[in-house]
Amino acid sequence: MKIAILGTGAVGQNLASKLRELGHEVYMATRNPEDTKARTEANPMSGSSFQDWYVNNQHVHVVAYGDLPKDADMVLNATSGQHSLDALNAVGTDKLSGKTILDLANPLDFSQGMPPTLTVCNTDSLGEQIQLAFPESKVVKSLNTVNFGLMTNPSLVPEDHNLFVSGNDESSKKQVIDLLAQLGWQKQNILDLGDIKTARGTEMMLPFWINLMGKFGTPLFNFKLVKNQ
Amino acid sequence: MKIAILGTGAVGQNLASKLRELGHEVYMATRNPEDTKARTEANPMSGSSFQDWYVNNQHVHVVAYGDLPKDADMVLNATSGQHSLDALNAVGTDKLSGKTILDLANPLDFSQGMPPTLTVCNTDSLGEQIQLAFPESKVVKSLNTVNFGLMTNPSLVPEDHNLFVSGNDESSKKQVIDLLAQLGWQKQNILDLGDIKTARGTEMMLPFWINLMGKFGTPLFNFKLVKNQ
Repeated sequence: MKIAILGTGAVGQNLASKLRELGHEVYMATRNPEDTKARTEANPMSGSSFQDWYVNNQHVHVVAYGDLPKDADMVLNATSGQHSLDALNAVGTDKLSGKTILDLANPLDFSQGMPPTLTVCNTDSLGEQIQLAFPESKVVKSLNTVNFGLMTNPSLVPEDHNLFVSGNDESSKKQVIDLLAQLGWQKQNILDLGDIKTARGTEMMLPFWINLMGKFGTPLFNFKLVKNQ
Repeated sequence: MKIAILGTGAVGQNLASKLRELGHEVYMATRNPEDTKARTEANPMSGSSFQDWYVNNQHVHVVAYGDLPKDADMVLNATSGQHSLDALNAVGTDKLSGKTILDLANPLDFSQGMPPTLTVCNTDSLGEQIQLAFPESKVVKSLNTVNFGLMTNPSLVPEDHNLFVSGNDESSKKQVIDLLAQLGWQKQNILDLGDIKTARGTEMMLPFWINLMGKFGTPLFNFKLVKNQ
């Protein structure tokens, strides 16, 4: 597939490397590609700089939002939640129309310190806002409940554990689930929660998730749903 | 112990029966005890009426909020989240002062249909509101992430699964954890999340929880946290 990733942070880098390794053609979009490629400061999540990463990932096309190809098969939103709508607007409705947008961002606001809050929640969600802003696109929320390391390597947690998808379009959810399977997720561990409104639930898990990360001292954990037989 | 339970619904009934069975002296508080005892309509959660339940639980003292004994060792808030502050105010600051309030309510609002929303979240929580309203009491949030059936019988889910406690007072959290152990919870599965602010995280899980209950067709499920070793 031809995959466009919005965002060049640790989440985007990790996905780009893995998708390229899987044989996909990968475009990574940012505001100013030359500035991004020149970045030498270490990313606090990954511990290395964009430049360090790019040395080993030259086959990934790093382009401006507006320069993404028209014929991408899927668009991954790996920007920070507060900037997602701006980034998608910079790509433009035309290039997003008809496409699956896999939205893995969370609308977290750390500006008031810990614990972070959500800029949208309860009666709305970032997933819904994106779907509303781009009605011709098919938004699927997923991967937002796990750390970027687990996204592409679920076996880092040595037990079954779950991932969730929310979206209005069944064929887009299937397309996302197929991609998740390529990333190493077992299909029986992926739960379809329903329409894009159900993204409220997974986005609202984030304050709890961040609390747990602090308790465990690692972001490499996940939820396994267990039930009465 | 002498335990006061606020609320006479399915959650309160189930806890009262179990705590009485464990040998505790149990008081159950409601607005109007005679009205409550006369209720013959089936509770949608338990399938039976208060009267049916009371026939087999005559040793539980059913009293008005204001008539709870002064010397209860712990107060359990099993009212619906929207009425919790009113119920606690009806008990009165004097009787709650110095005591552990185990708050298991969620501030859910079903009035606009499904999915329900929370009346307080993100920058505040019901647990915090109760702590703020009753500063001389020691609020511990717990049990709000599981169905009432699991609360008193965690082995209904045949695998390890987790419960969470949030609260400012360490000795009250210890008192609650000891009570949870009596209810069947293994202490190693109970995670102390931190102060009462962390109740935001577990209360905000509810929209997701209700979504999952619909998917699974049963409320008898829970989360098991699994992590990288």
